[in-house]
Amino acid sequence: MNFTYYAPTEVVFGDDAERHTAEMLRKYGATKILLHYGGHSAQRSGLLDTLRRQLTDAGLEFIELGGVVPNPRLSKVREGIALCREHGVDFILAVGGGSVIDSAKAIGYGIPYQGDVWDIYARRAVPQTVVPVGVVLTIPAAGSEMSNSSVITAEGAQGEDLKRGYTNNLCRPRFAIMNPRLTFTLPPYQTACGVVDILMHTLERYFTRGNDMALTDALAESLMRTVIECGPKVLADPHDYAARASIMWASSLSHNDLTANRDLGDWATHGIEHELSGLYDVAHGAGLAAVWPAWALAVMDHAPERFTRLAVNVFGVPYDFTSTRNTALAGIRAAMDFFRRMDMPVNITELLGGRPASDEDIDLMARKCTAGGPVGRLVRLDTAAVASILHQANTNPLP
Amino acid sequence: MNFTYYAPTEVVFGDDAERHTAEMLRKYGATKILLHYGGHSAQRSGLLDTLRRQLTDAGLEFIELGGVVPNPRLSKVREGIALCREHGVDFILAVGGGSVIDSAKAIGYGIPYQGDVWDIYARRAVPQTVVPVGVVLTIPAAGSEMSNSSVITAEGAQGEDLKRGYTNNLCRPRFAIMNPRLTFTLPPYQTACGVVDILMHTLERYFTRGNDMALTDALAESLMRTVIECGPKVLADPHDYAARASIMWASSLSHNDLTANRDLGDWATHGIEHELSGLYDVAHGAGLAAVWPAWALAVMDHAPERFTRLAVNVFGVPYDFTSTRNTALAGIRAAMDFFRRMDMPVNITELLGGRPASDEDIDLMARKCTAGGPVGRLVRLDTAAVASILHQANTNPLP
Repeated sequence: MNFTYYAPTEVVFGDDAERHTAEMLRKYGATKILLHYGGHSAQRSGLLDTLRRQLTDAGLEFIELGGVVPNPRLSKVREGIALCREHGVDFILAVGGGSVIDSAKAIGYGIPYQGDVWDIYARRAVPQTVVPVGVVLTIPAAGSEMSNSSVITAEGAQGEDLKRGYTNNLCRPRFAIMNPRLTFTLPPYQTACGVVDILMHTLERYFTRGNDMALTDALAESLMRTVIECGPKVLADPHDYAARASIMWASSLSHNDLTANRDLGDWATHGIEHELSGLYDVAHGAGLAAVWPAWALAVMDHAPERFTRLAVNVFGVPYDFTSTRNTALAGIRAAMDFFRRMDMPVNITELLGGRPASDEDIDLMARKCTAGGPVGRLVRLDTAAVASILHQANTNPLP
Repeated sequence: MNFTYYAPTEVVFGDDAERHTAEMLRKYGATKILLHYGGHSAQRSGLLDTLRRQLTDAGLEFIELGGVVPNPRLSKVREGIALCREHGVDFILAVGGGSVIDSAKAIGYGIPYQGDVWDIYARRAVPQTVVPVGVVLTIPAAGSEMSNSSVITAEGAQGEDLKRGYTNNLCRPRFAIMNPRLTFTLPPYQTACGVVDILMHTLERYFTRGNDMALTDALAESLMRTVIECGPKVLADPHDYAARASIMWASSLSHNDLTANRDLGDWATHGIEHELSGLYDVAHGAGLAAVWPAWALAVMDHAPERFTRLAVNVFGVPYDFTSTRNTALAGIRAAMDFFRRMDMPVNITELLGGRPASDEDIDLMARKCTAGGPVGRLVRLDTAAVASILHQANTNPLP
């Protein structure tokens, strides 16, 4: 399996790492900065004030744009682009998690681009240059702080929102500042969603057709075992620095192509989940947990060796020498048990608070998900196959 | 444990990857190139001719400097600097392994520096800029293709060679092209030396004081297990593409700070080995195998938990519940068994072909090794401690 690896983001990791923010901004040539963030948590925790003071003390000019929401919106991106053009911004500092970073990347594409930024996400234009992004990470989950991808939601009529991802090395953040202590106050639900997201970024890459890269598989398995071990620890003790640190670093490594190139992964679960969170505005990590078991059951017979390997090497399931299939099934069951331990849903009904997705919604999601052709790489799933997985995912797929 | 991670090298990995060389050179702005290489193997294999033709076809101007030897020499570096200045070289393409890459990095420092390049390795000057380096890797071992360090030997009177390393992010190669097939013809001894070197880059980082980074430990253990599994495979079948690929990628990851920052590692074994290869001009990997067991025995009681963990998690030694120390000892024995399976020496007498290091040589090496103060981080070793380890290493330290 051929691959490329390019992860130029400079990482500053550790307690108090955020005190290096102004220094990094200067190192990467920022002169006029957009401070971009989400809701109230960064304000309440005092992090924003700390950064404002630090930038001011360092003589760095900045303007602000907050209010980024989960599943970040195109309207906010457009607002940011206009604001940055007006003030001649040459660097964007994203303070937050994947949503804020993705929003920052989109603004970075949009400032120098002549047309509307959605052209890029709609594949009608290819960016030639960007305004660079730096990150102070507060929510480890998406891995966007070292990745070359971003996902933006264009608001439409009811049920017609369009969530689209775009991948380009230009947008990889120049630096990422990670202090595990900044994640101590992350609520349990968001913590759990992040852990599932990290696991899934690795799992999507794990389910490729190839079996020939022993090292990549071994690294991926280590990463997943570590996350599975540390996830329940931080739910039990939100101030467990070591466990928070491992999860934070895992979030970056799970999406910086160390555990295989993005374009070699499967990504069907992500594709299906994008429609779920697009339609119901649910958290991405929870949506992934609700979809994955049904996907796994639908495709497991196409790659029994990988599902068995996952069961034994990641979830510590004893190998059932009488049945490879039973071993693989026990692995899927173990994944669901892990989701439950993290208080995550394992089906759509749990995800939506007791209500299954309607037949109409499933048809709509399946059609939108496959509008560009079948999804998935391990197994190519057409509209009917995606609809069938969504139906399966409505209830416990593995009783 | 705080750390930074910065690995900007763009990796192109896979069969026929070298066909992208001209494309990468152009991407990174090379206009006048030094083609830098070692002995006859790259010539004999046809790789150099392929690259010459590719560069010529792409209209890229280049000059050549071959003849880099293992433990690369300062005299060759100076020759390269003069040559590059004369021809206005703005990019160095290193074709080979760690020696060629290290030589290229030193030339890259030297071209723009006003004084003599040895000032930099002697810590009398700090480089402000470099002529960049790109790599076509043919010997996976040193990890220099993604690392920020290089080691150069200044020729002196008999026994007075000085081998010094220097670390600076400026020298990290811009790109590294890795085709596992190019390593099929590597002789068994060089293959084994490379495998030991890779293992040791990870081991030196594994033996730090900290125990709080579960993910980094898990990744390091995966990397070591993979190398231990694949090493004997490629000795048995030099054309095992999958095993060659895992070793090649492991060589880069073992030294790009993924398994912990360089400056958090121990590096005593490396420091001692530098004196051995400086004095006897032996292969670096073989020297490491000859030194490590004696080092491990000397320091194991200072970090029993890490040596036990190495034994169980990396070498698969069953935990001896009656004795942590016996478990740790069994791990050191397992490492020696692995070196033997790779036809590597496990002591200095084997390294030097049946002759132990003399007391005078040991004194000289111990003094030179600690000229800048004690070495090692897990345990600080002064001159007497280093001499004691070298004496131990003369014969099988663990009968």
